[in-house]
Amino acid sequence: MKELKKGTISTPLGFKTNALNCGMKKSKPDLALIYSIVRAQCAGVFTKNKVKAAPVILGMKNLKDNHAQAIIVNSGNANCCTGKRGLDDALLISKSLAKELKLPSIDILISSTGVIGKYLPKEKIIKSLPKLVSGLGFNNAHKAVKAIMTTDTFAKQVAVEIKIKNKTVTVAAIAKGAGMICPNMATMLCFVTTDALINKTALTKALKLVVDETFNCISIDGQMSTNDSVIIMANGLAANAMIVENSREFEVFAGALKFVCLALAKMIVKDGEGATKFIEVNVIGAKSKKAASTAAMAISNSMLVKTMMAGNNPNWGRIPSALGAADVDFDVNKLVLTLQKKIVFKNSKPALKDQNVLIKSLKKKDINITANLNNGNFEHTVYSSDLTVEYVKVNMAYN
Amino acid sequence: MKELKKGTISTPLGFKTNALNCGMKKSKPDLALIYSIVRAQCAGVFTKNKVKAAPVILGMKNLKDNHAQAIIVNSGNANCCTGKRGLDDALLISKSLAKELKLPSIDILISSTGVIGKYLPKEKIIKSLPKLVSGLGFNNAHKAVKAIMTTDTFAKQVAVEIKIKNKTVTVAAIAKGAGMICPNMATMLCFVTTDALINKTALTKALKLVVDETFNCISIDGQMSTNDSVIIMANGLAANAMIVENSREFEVFAGALKFVCLALAKMIVKDGEGATKFIEVNVIGAKSKKAASTAAMAISNSMLVKTMMAGNNPNWGRIPSALGAADVDFDVNKLVLTLQKKIVFKNSKPALKDQNVLIKSLKKKDINITANLNNGNFEHTVYSSDLTVEYVKVNMAYN
Repeated sequence: MKELKKGTISTPLGFKTNALNCGMKKSKPDLALIYSIVRAQCAGVFTKNKVKAAPVILGMKNLKDNHAQAIIVNSGNANCCTGKRGLDDALLISKSLAKELKLPSIDILISSTGVIGKYLPKEKIIKSLPKLVSGLGFNNAHKAVKAIMTTDTFAKQVAVEIKIKNKTVTVAAIAKGAGMICPNMATMLCFVTTDALINKTALTKALKLVVDETFNCISIDGQMSTNDSVIIMANGLAANAMIVENSREFEVFAGALKFVCLALAKMIVKDGEGATKFIEVNVIGAKSKKAASTAAMAISNSMLVKTMMAGNNPNWGRIPSALGAADVDFDVNKLVLTLQKKIVFKNSKPALKDQNVLIKSLKKKDINITANLNNGNFEHTVYSSDLTVEYVKVNMAYN
Repeated sequence: MKELKKGTISTPLGFKTNALNCGMKKSKPDLALIYSIVRAQCAGVFTKNKVKAAPVILGMKNLKDNHAQAIIVNSGNANCCTGKRGLDDALLISKSLAKELKLPSIDILISSTGVIGKYLPKEKIIKSLPKLVSGLGFNNAHKAVKAIMTTDTFAKQVAVEIKIKNKTVTVAAIAKGAGMICPNMATMLCFVTTDALINKTALTKALKLVVDETFNCISIDGQMSTNDSVIIMANGLAANAMIVENSREFEVFAGALKFVCLALAKMIVKDGEGATKFIEVNVIGAKSKKAASTAAMAISNSMLVKTMMAGNNPNWGRIPSALGAADVDFDVNKLVLTLQKKIVFKNSKPALKDQNVLIKSLKKKDINITANLNNGNFEHTVYSSDLTVEYVKVNMAYN
């Protein structure tokens, strides 16, 4: 596997993109289009929130045939809590775009991100479709990655190249993140393009596996949004031997997909609203995978742990406290807690002699918390950020 | 029932108190003693955190006989995550105080609040015991209520008077709260004194019922601490006819206890670290009590809802989003959401025509959120606060 430092979602063969400002935001691009020149195998993982945005409902429906050819994405409005009108709006956009692209509308997916509970200014989008489509090209990916940003402070894209039986296959993706990350992805959009030739079950399985190990392992503020979507289009133009489940090629492809998604997931955490720290929470020695994951999320989501990190504050007692309050079976007498690789709690008592060393190491941007429950063989890692004054300021504002 | 505006925990007959600075904090009182002149019936509700502080472990043990005569409380150190040494320290303090008070040590309870993971400076406490005991009096309650404060900005005490078959009975309590409130009480200490004559089962039952309906219904930052304790001493000096379960007198007593605890619970929310708003979250029409309570807690604990309130931000879509992410069975099409008594979401779409009216009403200090799931007959209320820049600042610091 080779990372393509300058790769974009147009690096895999056959993917054109475009983006423009349709007037939902003041001036920056707010509407993006990702288009494959041939119909692509497609899979999606969507939010588990019971309140699903209209584009998510429509997307799940359109993806029942496991194919798509275009994804249109708007930022500035989530088209959520908008009832039948919201669904009608999404449908109208997909039909209008279908006409413009000369495709069946079922091959179009919509993604939206932004404020909840406001109707989509659909006229602005529809009016912009001819220009959006006519401008499609192989060199516009830099615009698309910017158009999907909301409170993100930097664009997020990753691309890698792999060999599938001597054929070169490329996997690339863009993502938007920032606030509301965790669990199960949150206001997070990710679009993956690949020219791999891969069958339906293999693509669906690879995406599910990878999302569980990447985007579902990050936490910014413990919220899961109504619009989260990770969508992959595989158009087969690399002309490799068909990738099927339970093969070495499947492992190679899933590995590349995981590399791309994990890199984006970590970027999302680093760009968490107001975040100044990147926190890796490892729970090891748990009785089950679920226990490990619940424990890691409990530590990651604790506002007291998050503020402690923002303040380089050595008050590590907040970590066992967060753990003890979670629905996880463990014995505090067996718990070994390390912070920045230093054991701070063991045998049910403080284990650190020189607190100044800890205080110094907490000033680093990268924080590691490892809790060994000594209770079994399962482990889980969550990537998280700190809670800062800036986070509160960003979210006090209406955006 | 009559509220005694100037009542203290020394208003019920036979309760002496004292407080002083033992040197754990710079100058403000950090050690309090509550003492009944006769051995009292006693009940306690303690944290459900699996990581329990030493005083909680000892207190649960000493309360097995349902009696106590004195409670000693220190602030500044939680004596938690301190292993066998922490337990030995707590035991030594209770034995030293027992000697001073000429009581069996099993009749002494200890409560601690403060930083986790540091050994208790027990010498400072033990050295102060003679002075603490010799200063016991009926007019020191104002000192005791201050000594249990940590980041609280005001002292919290309530007292009421009731009639039990023509005898006057008084119920009074003090509490400390501030950070880390919810669910199941969090770093919350509450001490109730009453001169009621009440039997063991009635007292235990009344306390459990009332704690579930008061302290367990508040949320500040979604954390549950290692030291939470609500303890009631009933010394019987009112000489009323013994209160037993399933009687009218039980209802009167439990009603008084609820009044006192609910008033303190609300004060704790109002005094949440950095809080500027008092938020009442009502979930109605739920399928079960558990569903109602999970839903209300999910809304109350959402960092996005909390920051929204801090900013008088009308972004109500964050409420259905928080609800949809919770483990609660409901249909978004039936959900009716009101904010400040105005319907903002109904029939799966926005229901408010004039958003300016909402923005104006959100500027009030008291916020009401009501979510009708239209799914059953159960309801639950949670009292909550907003998330402000000040909260983050307070908790970034090491305290």
